[in-house]
Amino acid sequence: MTNPFAGKNVLSTKDFSKHDVEYLMETASKMKDMKQDGSKVLSNKIMASMFLEPSTRTRLSFDAAMKRLGGQVVGFSDWEKSSFHKGETLSDTLRVVENYADVVVLRSKYEGAARYAASILEIPVINAGSGSQEHPTQAFLDLACIKEEKGYIDGLTIGLCGDLHYGRTVHSLVPLLARYDITLVLISPESLGLRDEDKASLKESGVTFKEVELLETVIGDLDCLYMTRIQRERFPSEEDYRKVRGFYVLNQDTLKGASDQLLLMHPLPRINEIDPGVDALPQAVYFKQPMHGLHVRMALLALIFDIL
Amino acid sequence: MTNPFAGKNVLSTKDFSKHDVEYLMETASKMKDMKQDGSKVLSNKIMASMFLEPSTRTRLSFDAAMKRLGGQVVGFSDWEKSSFHKGETLSDTLRVVENYADVVVLRSKYEGAARYAASILEIPVINAGSGSQEHPTQAFLDLACIKEEKGYIDGLTIGLCGDLHYGRTVHSLVPLLARYDITLVLISPESLGLRDEDKASLKESGVTFKEVELLETVIGDLDCLYMTRIQRERFPSEEDYRKVRGFYVLNQDTLKGASDQLLLMHPLPRINEIDPGVDALPQAVYFKQPMHGLHVRMALLALIFDIL
Amino acid sequence: MTNPFAGKNVLSTKDFSKHDVEYLMETASKMKDMKQDGSKVLSNKIMASMFLEPSTRTRLSFDAAMKRLGGQVVGFSDWEKSSFHKGETLSDTLRVVENYADVVVLRSKYEGAARYAASILEIPVINAGSGSQEHPTQAFLDLACIKEEKGYIDGLTIGLCGDLHYGRTVHSLVPLLARYDITLVLISPESLGLRDEDKASLKESGVTFKEVELLETVIGDLDCLYMTRIQRERFPSEEDYRKVRGFYVLNQDTLKGASDQLLLMHPLPRINEIDPGVDALPQAVYFKQPMHGLHVRMALLALIFDIL
Repeated sequence: MTNPFAGKNVLSTKDFSKHDVEYLMETASKMKDMKQDGSKVLSNKIMASMFLEPSTRTRLSFDAAMKRLGGQVVGFSDWEKSSFHKGETLSDTLRVVENYADVVVLRSKYEGAARYAASILEIPVINAGSGSQEHPTQAFLDLACIKEEKGYIDGLTIGLCGDLHYGRTVHSLVPLLARYDITLVLISPESLGLRDEDKASLKESGVTFKEVELLETVIGDLDCLYMTRIQRERFPSEEDYRKVRGFYVLNQDTLKGASDQLLLMHPLPRINEIDPGVDALPQAVYFKQPMHGLHVRMALLALIFDIL
Repeated sequence: MTNPFAGKNVLSTKDFSKHDVEYLMETASKMKDMKQDGSKVLSNKIMASMFLEPSTRTRLSFDAAMKRLGGQVVGFSDWEKSSFHKGETLSDTLRVVENYADVVVLRSKYEGAARYAASILEIPVINAGSGSQEHPTQAFLDLACIKEEKGYIDGLTIGLCGDLHYGRTVHSLVPLLARYDITLVLISPESLGLRDEDKASLKESGVTFKEVELLETVIGDLDCLYMTRIQRERFPSEEDYRKVRGFYVLNQDTLKGASDQLLLMHPLPRINEIDPGVDALPQAVYFKQPMHGLHVRMALLALIFDIL
Repeated sequence: MTNPFAGKNVLSTKDFSKHDVEYLMETASKMKDMKQDGSKVLSNKIMASMFLEPSTRTRLSFDAAMKRLGGQVVGFSDWEKSSFHKGETLSDTLRVVENYADVVVLRSKYEGAARYAASILEIPVINAGSGSQEHPTQAFLDLACIKEEKGYIDGLTIGLCGDLHYGRTVHSLVPLLARYDITLVLISPESLGLRDEDKASLKESGVTFKEVELLETVIGDLDCLYMTRIQRERFPSEEDYRKVRGFYVLNQDTLKGASDQLLLMHPLPRINEIDPGVDALPQAVYFKQPMHGLHVRMALLALIFDIL
């Protein structure tokens, strides 16, 4: 089986077929061993970690992934600290950094920043989150988490809960899930419902889905529940926010009707969507998601450099 | 002799026996050679350097220690740059970072932060300074400096001078010194005297100590003088501060009554407690303390991973 | 031929003879191969990257250079984040950091900062830009770019255009060019003309040069055109600035009278001195300059440690 990621950019989950995704998942599942063996397969490689907006979690994950494979990292973690403030364009900075590195990991609050970077550069670009649209490596890790923790994906009933409209996490995950034979339950207030384009793509893929407002009415049906942050500033009034926030606090009570096999996930950071009292449950895997993230990013780097 | 640090947390100097401390000192004294040989014993390990408040000196020392042993580092150097500002708790961040690293080095202005981290994490935690209470690796390096530069500790008369009340450095060093057969001279204005708990622990350990205000009256008795910063903001009035500051400027004059074997130490940064005219004296070792710090931290990391 | 950089500081281009410079250029031209082979010749070395003012481009270049040779880096990228704000002097910080590293790379807005550091430290210091006077590694890379892209330096007619007065780039490059048999064309508004000391040194070296205001009148004579940023704040009025800015925008029009062999260079960042429409020309090498910078810095580090 040829490696579909060799020399490729990773810009959007939409760019990859089910076969590609499965190939990545399989590679990721081998990374635990490579990590423990202290692999040095990337010891001649440098990753440019270009975080135009701060992101500790994703930055550290890519950093660790590169270093676990023996590679090195150069970069910056904040737009203001960089030379951008001298008035240089992103395009020029990218062309400079290209001389120092073998792969670019780019995070930006601007839509399409990573795709733009890829159009300029000759070295591969990995999108570490751009605007409100794309965060493909988060989606890959979410999928890897489901697959590793459940053992399979086809046949599952998966709930996405909270802000399904504004966040890039859900927007990147839905096209991936659409490649599988699953049932999707979309749980959100109407104002935070899944974008029309995402629903259209679900229909096109033939994925069964329904939209509900109350978590309690569907929690018993779910094999996996993916919680997201609801950000106060989205709401017209404090009252509206509070009402909705009340619906989506996952705690021992909310979980009463749930299967004890219900996988609990969250891309983090969580604020109050999940009560800390839930953390100790064996099916609460949101603190294992970063581990799957490390493995998926190790796998991506190893595949892009085609050294396996 | 079994390694008492294998897999352990390093949270407070109080947690370690004299035997443990001696074991560490002996390991540290071997690190100069390992440094020169370019040891790669930690080449499969990643240290998470989590500095919730900035600290160039300690952060760089741990960074260099890990890298001198072939290890890698991921982390952040400033709370504001991290994702904490999205409202995540320290607990959650720690549980995320745990997936990326094999050891956590934590610096925080909050009391007990490192102990709290250790209670949550399964990987070892090293306290790189927490609140006003603990800075164990600074105390270990101070002790290593005395031992390496003097050749021994038992029998010495050691002066601690300046702010003995608020600083975490002295508070961490005193319990270590109390494990040895030394005489302690506490030199401070009354308002900055050693904390009652520290004096109690000295009494309990049977350490002879006395408290004085004037450095000049005791400097002739000392084998080692450990200066500390006195911070202006502690004092009720500018006049009080100035009077005290005058007492504790170490210069050629102040040193007239001192033995020419008197070891001069300071945890740094120094402001005006030591006149630069003193720097060239052979017994002024405050710029060698960071070297001992590097060796002690290399030793701690090597021992925690038990790879010697 | 003995290595003239072994154990040496790199503070100013004026400190190096033509022989030294040629030695560096030859070493730099071998670095492309060492980079691809994944050399680990500096695997036992640590570079302290001390950026007292932010500089993404230069910091990343040194970072990548050290890591391409297998070395490690510790440091900080911003004065404010460092412990300097506790009131410590630069001198003290340098003496601390010396314990952690084998070479110091120092960037500062203060004149003479690197030379001062070198006077204090026993390990080599590389000046990564100090005040308005010196940026030797930028000048070395500029020269390397000319030599690699043209194949030779003697005999060339080289134009320097824009702000020839305030920038440290030109001030560091001129003494290097003065070692060669070239003709220099200085293109600038009168108020931004080359400093008197630089003109005196050109005369002393016997370099033919002329000063002009209009780029168009001389562009046909040039083999190489080195553009620089003109910073608005230098000018007495917005009108004066605009008039001058108009002269020095390099675009397809301005280039009409130029040889199609004319090498186009810029130390970057560029603002509007070069129209993006020029970027695609084969002789526009300003985005290859950083590559030569990487090679020159790799060469400097390898030579300082004398490991070739």
